[in-house]
Amino acid sequence: MKIILIGYGAMNQRVARLAEEKGHEVEGVIVRDSSKTYPYPTFERISDAKDADVAIDFSNPELLLPLLDDEFKLPLVIATTGEKEEIVEKLKELSSKMPVFFSANMSYGVHALTKILEAAVPLLQDFDIELTEAHHNKKVDAPSGTLVKLYDVIESLRDKTTPVYDRHETNAKRTQDEIGIHSVRGGTIVGQHDVLFAGTDETIEITHRAQSKDIFANGSIGAAEKLIHKSNDFYTFDNL
Amino acid sequence: MKIILIGYGAMNQRVARLAEEKGHEVEGVIVRDSSKTYPYPTFERISDAKDADVAIDFSNPELLLPLLDDEFKLPLVIATTGEKEEIVEKLKELSSKMPVFFSANMSYGVHALTKILEAAVPLLQDFDIELTEAHHNKKVDAPSGTLVKLYDVIESLRDKTTPVYDRHETNAKRTQDEIGIHSVRGGTIVGQHDVLFAGTDETIEITHRAQSKDIFANGSIGAAEKLIHKSNDFYTFDNL
Amino acid sequence: MKIILIGYGAMNQRVARLAEEKGHEVEGVIVRDSSKTYPYPTFERISDAKDADVAIDFSNPELLLPLLDDEFKLPLVIATTGEKEEIVEKLKELSSKMPVFFSANMSYGVHALTKILEAAVPLLQDFDIELTEAHHNKKVDAPSGTLVKLYDVIESLRDKTTPVYDRHETNAKRTQDEIGIHSVRGGTIVGQHDVLFAGTDETIEITHRAQSKDIFANGSIGAAEKLIHKSNDFYTFDNL
Amino acid sequence: MKIILIGYGAMNQRVARLAEEKGHEVEGVIVRDSSKTYPYPTFERISDAKDADVAIDFSNPELLLPLLDDEFKLPLVIATTGEKEEIVEKLKELSSKMPVFFSANMSYGVHALTKILEAAVPLLQDFDIELTEAHHNKKVDAPSGTLVKLYDVIESLRDKTTPVYDRHETNAKRTQDEIGIHSVRGGTIVGQHDVLFAGTDETIEITHRAQSKDIFANGSIGAAEKLIHKSNDFYTFDNL
Repeated sequence: MKIILIGYGAMNQRVARLAEEKGHEVEGVIVRDSSKTYPYPTFERISDAKDADVAIDFSNPELLLPLLDDEFKLPLVIATTGEKEEIVEKLKELSSKMPVFFSANMSYGVHALTKILEAAVPLLQDFDIELTEAHHNKKVDAPSGTLVKLYDVIESLRDKTTPVYDRHETNAKRTQDEIGIHSVRGGTIVGQHDVLFAGTDETIEITHRAQSKDIFANGSIGAAEKLIHKSNDFYTFDNL
Repeated sequence: MKIILIGYGAMNQRVARLAEEKGHEVEGVIVRDSSKTYPYPTFERISDAKDADVAIDFSNPELLLPLLDDEFKLPLVIATTGEKEEIVEKLKELSSKMPVFFSANMSYGVHALTKILEAAVPLLQDFDIELTEAHHNKKVDAPSGTLVKLYDVIESLRDKTTPVYDRHETNAKRTQDEIGIHSVRGGTIVGQHDVLFAGTDETIEITHRAQSKDIFANGSIGAAEKLIHKSNDFYTFDNL
Repeated sequence: MKIILIGYGAMNQRVARLAEEKGHEVEGVIVRDSSKTYPYPTFERISDAKDADVAIDFSNPELLLPLLDDEFKLPLVIATTGEKEEIVEKLKELSSKMPVFFSANMSYGVHALTKILEAAVPLLQDFDIELTEAHHNKKVDAPSGTLVKLYDVIESLRDKTTPVYDRHETNAKRTQDEIGIHSVRGGTIVGQHDVLFAGTDETIEITHRAQSKDIFANGSIGAAEKLIHKSNDFYTFDNL
Repeated sequence: MKIILIGYGAMNQRVARLAEEKGHEVEGVIVRDSSKTYPYPTFERISDAKDADVAIDFSNPELLLPLLDDEFKLPLVIATTGEKEEIVEKLKELSSKMPVFFSANMSYGVHALTKILEAAVPLLQDFDIELTEAHHNKKVDAPSGTLVKLYDVIESLRDKTTPVYDRHETNAKRTQDEIGIHSVRGGTIVGQHDVLFAGTDETIEITHRAQSKDIFANGSIGAAEKLIHKSNDFYTFDNL
């Protein structure tokens, strides 16, 4: 598989390394500042990459959106965050001419976690739910975007939910609609998400642990490997 | 809800206590040796319990099967293990005249765990699976019946599976079809079951923890509470 | 071992049951309202229990303190909370005439957890620490008393510590002196305490799980079994 | 700190990268095959590295032992495994002229885990112990060397211990001297070690999780940073 990379930040540098380890080839990169030196040829436009089988994007709306207005036909794996609506709309247009995959979180495991949660929540309506995420001590925002996504899944499947971030001065019993949210920070933890269902004398706990940011790079490569065999359409992890 | 108990061993004694705590009433018990003294009236046959709304059974085929041959009409919650085929066949016959619930494992959480697993296994085909259960130090059999049930779910959803119980003298890489099975024993642990999915740089783990054998008693009471409002049919946790 | 129980609330009822299961004997109980009926003889004063080998107390200062002013000589296991200073002072006086054991938390495991923590904290000075406790959904206070005790151990062994209860609107990196404190509430969880040490690419986690309130009853019986062979002195879990 | 690396395999390549990220300098490498190209100058002998402050070794007895017979004076951090007795003897000789640090496992966390275990085992004599380790699916040996080390710590602190690797056909109660040993294999798990103490209605669990092999590289750099300020002696993690 010959890949063109859109963006060459930390994440696409991992994509390059991991793709080559898997026997794929990086044909070139599309970057904003092509005056710097890169270990791969640089291209201005997607259509310049004549031999590419697929493009993998980990960039930003400023770089990505103008590229999408160009004339080309290439399977696209897009992970840019920000300007989500505009990007998705544009990608859906393009998907009549080429297969397009989009996900704001390229970890397949996180995707699987949300699907498992969709199965678990209706089964465990009488159980209390608490969410815990753990990340490294340099992460400034809390809770994590993935935890918010898990919360949204629960919210869509329960009558009423109320997030609770702090109980230390409340002095009141938990109500059934409460979803406790706990953000653990420490060391270099890459990312851990835990959903606890607590019932009468039994609990069920579902935990996702990321060991390396490679999961996002690997997720995009895995999506690309499947996408190139697909017909023209708009794909996410749900229908790939 | 007025309950008649079939059998009055450790489990139905818990059912009695927990049912009363929930405001239900125990009308009487059906036991093999009615010469002993019991805290409730004893009955010979199910039809003798005129006012009962439901029968909850934690007994054995010797006590249960003859009772089922009698003439009666009462919602039944049956948890007897052993002679499963004969009992299920008999219950299915009866279910044209009354609603009947059967489960060899009355823990709702264990049931939910198997359903969650049915959702997770197809999503995580590329992940290695390992199963671990932990129980008290007096349990003589290993692995637990529940772990075997979890294994069966996985086996039915993967092309090939091979259980592996011991790796300490193997000196070989794990193959993809291996399912490692680990039986931890110690203290008075009531029961813990854990399914680990291990992929590239990420894992998903699903854990069920029982805190007390009350989960089985509570499961039967919960099933009874629903069953008395159901039409005549044969029910399990899957369709209740 | 013949035991006299001071107080006969939920906890000493468990002590009675568990002590008898272990082959001990309950000689009688000392209660505030001796007009109620109890399954054991009632006594007014400790000295009335002529044959007792030990007294086990789970009561309150109102019942306990007047009893201690009496004239008697009997090994004492005391778990009353409240009026700690006055009670400990009184017990230390008595300990010249009899062996006396005192602990506000009779769980031996929780005691062991604090001792393990005393070993771990100095070894892991560069690691970030986060504390998590989980309890049932009816517990009104947070964090738990045991978590506060764990925090105190850490505080006494580190230069500076700052408890942090909520990070969801902070938007700042964690500082090294922060100790995140998380109170999970759900179902009927008896009690779980977790100390996470997070360093560079590795974590150490120490977790205590209580499965039943019997641990407090068992802790007091275990302490009594040892205490009756001890010379006159004031004991805690540290020197028993 | 100027470092000379003995060996330049996967581990010392990490040491180089991490040391530079921390602001240290790699002066050169000593390798067996100096005809290959390296990103650093190559030296034949330790004494050739005139400006080095410390040597960090992750090599093998064939490369290391001849180097130690040379004439030199430089703080040494040695992680070679194999020929342990001969190497330790040689290092102890050298330690009269320079500070020398030796450990076959450079993870500080694993060292801390063994020290915590030394505190925990005597406190929890009545608890059953079970050991579990998890590693990636390419690891051929089981149990891991670290688990064996943990077992040795327990064995030295208990009257009698018997390792048990498989319980699935035993059909017998656990005896108190049993130490269950469980080797989980899956995905790319870097390394997890877990010690479970299970008592009556309570458990204590101590878990070490490695997220990356960087812990070994970082452990050696941390040891070097301390060692260069030490007087001549033979050091391990116990006395550094």
